[in-house]
Amino acid sequence: MAKDFSTRAENYSKWYNDIVQRAELAENSAVRGCMVIKPYGYAIWEKMQAALDNMFKETGHSNAYFPLFIPKSFFSKEADHVEGFAKECAIVTHYRLKNDPDGKGVVVDGDAKLEEELIIRPTSETIIWDTYRNWIQSYRDLPILVNQWANVVRWEMRTRMFLRTAEFLWQEGHTAHATEQEALEETYQMLDVYADFAENFMAIPVLKGLKSENERFAGALETFCIEALMQDGKALQAGTSHFLGQNFAKAFDVKFASKEGKLEHVWATSWGVSTRLVGALIMAHSDDNGLVLPPKLAPIQTVIVPIYKTEDQRKVVFEKAAEIKKLLKGLGIRVKFDDRDTHKPGWKFNEYEFKGVPVRIAIGPRDVENGTVEIARRDLLKKDIVATDQLVQRVPELLDDIQDTLFQRALTFREENTRKADSWEEFVHILDDKGGFILAHWDGTAETEQKIKDETKATIRCIPLGDKKEPGKCVYTGKPSEGRVVFARAY
Amino acid sequence: MAKDFSTRAENYSKWYNDIVQRAELAENSAVRGCMVIKPYGYAIWEKMQAALDNMFKETGHSNAYFPLFIPKSFFSKEADHVEGFAKECAIVTHYRLKNDPDGKGVVVDGDAKLEEELIIRPTSETIIWDTYRNWIQSYRDLPILVNQWANVVRWEMRTRMFLRTAEFLWQEGHTAHATEQEALEETYQMLDVYADFAENFMAIPVLKGLKSENERFAGALETFCIEALMQDGKALQAGTSHFLGQNFAKAFDVKFASKEGKLEHVWATSWGVSTRLVGALIMAHSDDNGLVLPPKLAPIQTVIVPIYKTEDQRKVVFEKAAEIKKLLKGLGIRVKFDDRDTHKPGWKFNEYEFKGVPVRIAIGPRDVENGTVEIARRDLLKKDIVATDQLVQRVPELLDDIQDTLFQRALTFREENTRKADSWEEFVHILDDKGGFILAHWDGTAETEQKIKDETKATIRCIPLGDKKEPGKCVYTGKPSEGRVVFARAY
Repeated sequence: MAKDFSTRAENYSKWYNDIVQRAELAENSAVRGCMVIKPYGYAIWEKMQAALDNMFKETGHSNAYFPLFIPKSFFSKEADHVEGFAKECAIVTHYRLKNDPDGKGVVVDGDAKLEEELIIRPTSETIIWDTYRNWIQSYRDLPILVNQWANVVRWEMRTRMFLRTAEFLWQEGHTAHATEQEALEETYQMLDVYADFAENFMAIPVLKGLKSENERFAGALETFCIEALMQDGKALQAGTSHFLGQNFAKAFDVKFASKEGKLEHVWATSWGVSTRLVGALIMAHSDDNGLVLPPKLAPIQTVIVPIYKTEDQRKVVFEKAAEIKKLLKGLGIRVKFDDRDTHKPGWKFNEYEFKGVPVRIAIGPRDVENGTVEIARRDLLKKDIVATDQLVQRVPELLDDIQDTLFQRALTFREENTRKADSWEEFVHILDDKGGFILAHWDGTAETEQKIKDETKATIRCIPLGDKKEPGKCVYTGKPSEGRVVFARAY
Repeated sequence: MAKDFSTRAENYSKWYNDIVQRAELAENSAVRGCMVIKPYGYAIWEKMQAALDNMFKETGHSNAYFPLFIPKSFFSKEADHVEGFAKECAIVTHYRLKNDPDGKGVVVDGDAKLEEELIIRPTSETIIWDTYRNWIQSYRDLPILVNQWANVVRWEMRTRMFLRTAEFLWQEGHTAHATEQEALEETYQMLDVYADFAENFMAIPVLKGLKSENERFAGALETFCIEALMQDGKALQAGTSHFLGQNFAKAFDVKFASKEGKLEHVWATSWGVSTRLVGALIMAHSDDNGLVLPPKLAPIQTVIVPIYKTEDQRKVVFEKAAEIKKLLKGLGIRVKFDDRDTHKPGWKFNEYEFKGVPVRIAIGPRDVENGTVEIARRDLLKKDIVATDQLVQRVPELLDDIQDTLFQRALTFREENTRKADSWEEFVHILDDKGGFILAHWDGTAETEQKIKDETKATIRCIPLGDKKEPGKCVYTGKPSEGRVVFARAY
């Protein structure tokens, strides 16, 4: 197709933006840092939501909804939390406009000033824990396993569609427990749910790990995360699960009477993923021909493109195409028959290739005669001729195979781009020359991590879970290290 | 059960609030006018969303997402629109907090003032039509059939849970068309979708009609609505579908090249329903024993309550209950087996009755022996003994019958509370004595409608669609009238 968009090698950042825009996923809006999620991009998010929501419900969670606004005073109640979020929040100060006395338009009505300013939620721990205080009296009221699908606002200065926007969509789980142990188990469980979703739906392999203190959520005792590797060798945090200890229960005075009749503070977790995942999905699989989508999250899994010249041909081809559509739909496949006569088949081929539709079926009059179709897979850009009566087997097989191939390809890429560094020289060399995940020893201090970040822009993505500890010496200070951690430059 | 909540006759308003709170649907939050939607209330909204979303998609619409914020200047572009919404909006003026230099806590950072204030969307016509300008060049780009599920904010002074809150959840459809005719057809189609949903899912009969000028959406040429009657004789607007003409296309300069190559302004519609529908659902069907839910929207359609004393009995009863649960779940019924040993059966009976679960199955050791269960329906508060092997037929039949009974009951109520008034005396008498819908002649002027409202608090709910026109004399002025319209006091 006409090459008027960037390749990854030419300009990775432009390649990403080109895909977002040309595949009609999103665009910048008139409001600084906020994007419009277009129907095709939103359809991917809907598929993600449906899969995640189902996983949350299977693990016993219910959805609820809490206010968009948080009273300013709530913010100050948890010291680390306000420190983490105060610098980037949208603040509502007035509640009325009036006609501009000096001319056209409207101005803020100075008489309509709020007594206490309201913050647009950047995350909802404070308003939710203020609410939980009234929900929890005894151990019988626990656990509370609640999730919220919502929009949040963080006044980011440098934004990028899907990856970092001032307003974004997400889910935030907020659970309350009687014991530390149970809260920790929930934290791990939701980390596993996220990893499962990333690998089995998004086809993206992820590392599960613990965040260092520098990267911890403001107000958490521990933050766990899943980290993915993008094709430019940069890491992307794809989800976090926080063990909040009793911090918010103490800040909002949430206590319960235990079985033994003692009054104790409640234990908490919170966990979230956002529309950022759509950005991760784009960057993990797409190629220089456009978007590539894993079948499980593709809004259209299979598209049927008819080829014809005469009206007679049109009739024959449409009839067969409609038949195939019905057949595939009956199998639960999301199938589209593009019957528009305003566009040529070649244009349609390019369009669906660019939009990452996993399987394309082309059918012309000759095919109808032969009882065959042409079937193309987006991931490998390969075509094949298949007997029409084989489609019921072949299309589902192909979709499974594409899902699997994308995961394996991403896994191989990650394995090839995960390297050990045992000296500072080696560390810097790998980072500048190759990128990717670097497994290196670290002395465990926030100071060293900060210095490494200042010098190289690399951060500790996570302290991997479950790895065997291998003592060594910090790659930067030479001081003793308990085990390797994962460094990378990150989105 | 213990009567510590109001009946409708005692205090209708308190009865409503008691149900909202005691059935754990919602509660007031720490933020003025904003509610917390609790898991059970949110589950009802999720069922509504799923059914509506499916209907929107069946009629060719896709979901998308537009910014929460609207630049202040956008508001002034459509004169009626700003007039309608400027008096009740939340305004973001700053984007950063800082530590209070005089002591504890945080204050708004005066240095972080926005150049142009941002309005939290009260509805999204302006930001969406600003976006559509770039989406539409030619007739080939039309129609655009987009819907958004979102939160919106209107700074209401008098709020009531679900019925009127400062922040609420809703969907807003925004479509763009090449011709007036097509836009009008869309407006009617979505009105029909809403009426279909209200009657077939919510089990609430609705009147379809046109709004008078006084009640029209700010910026619309015509507003169509569905109107429902609540048990206290007040009307509730349950959904609106607006024909916007070319107003927003003109305000935001959205033109397209027609097939004939002429540059024309685009035609628009918008339509929405909100969490207000949950309020309507509660008020339409509930009784003095609590919430009553139509099966199609009930989060739990059937609950199984086990009855036992000894451990042996428990074992036998649980086994049979689990078997029944599996059986009903296999039929696609949302069934819950309440196996908690922290609460007695009597407590559970009251709980599920109050929460409006349509069907309750109770099973004890004697039932297991006899191969029967006790089955109770919430709508009529009737119980019956049924053979266990009949449940596969009886439960689905019962759910259908309850859905139908609720609709018929509401329809009968509406019919009994719809009256003609042919004199002003009669009008006032019906309104004060009986409430309900009043069919009366009106001279067609905004002045008369306003006077009637000022004197009686009754408004024109709608000018009914499809009725045969019957000329007469205005009930207030005696001037000529083209046909009866529907008056009522309303929520």
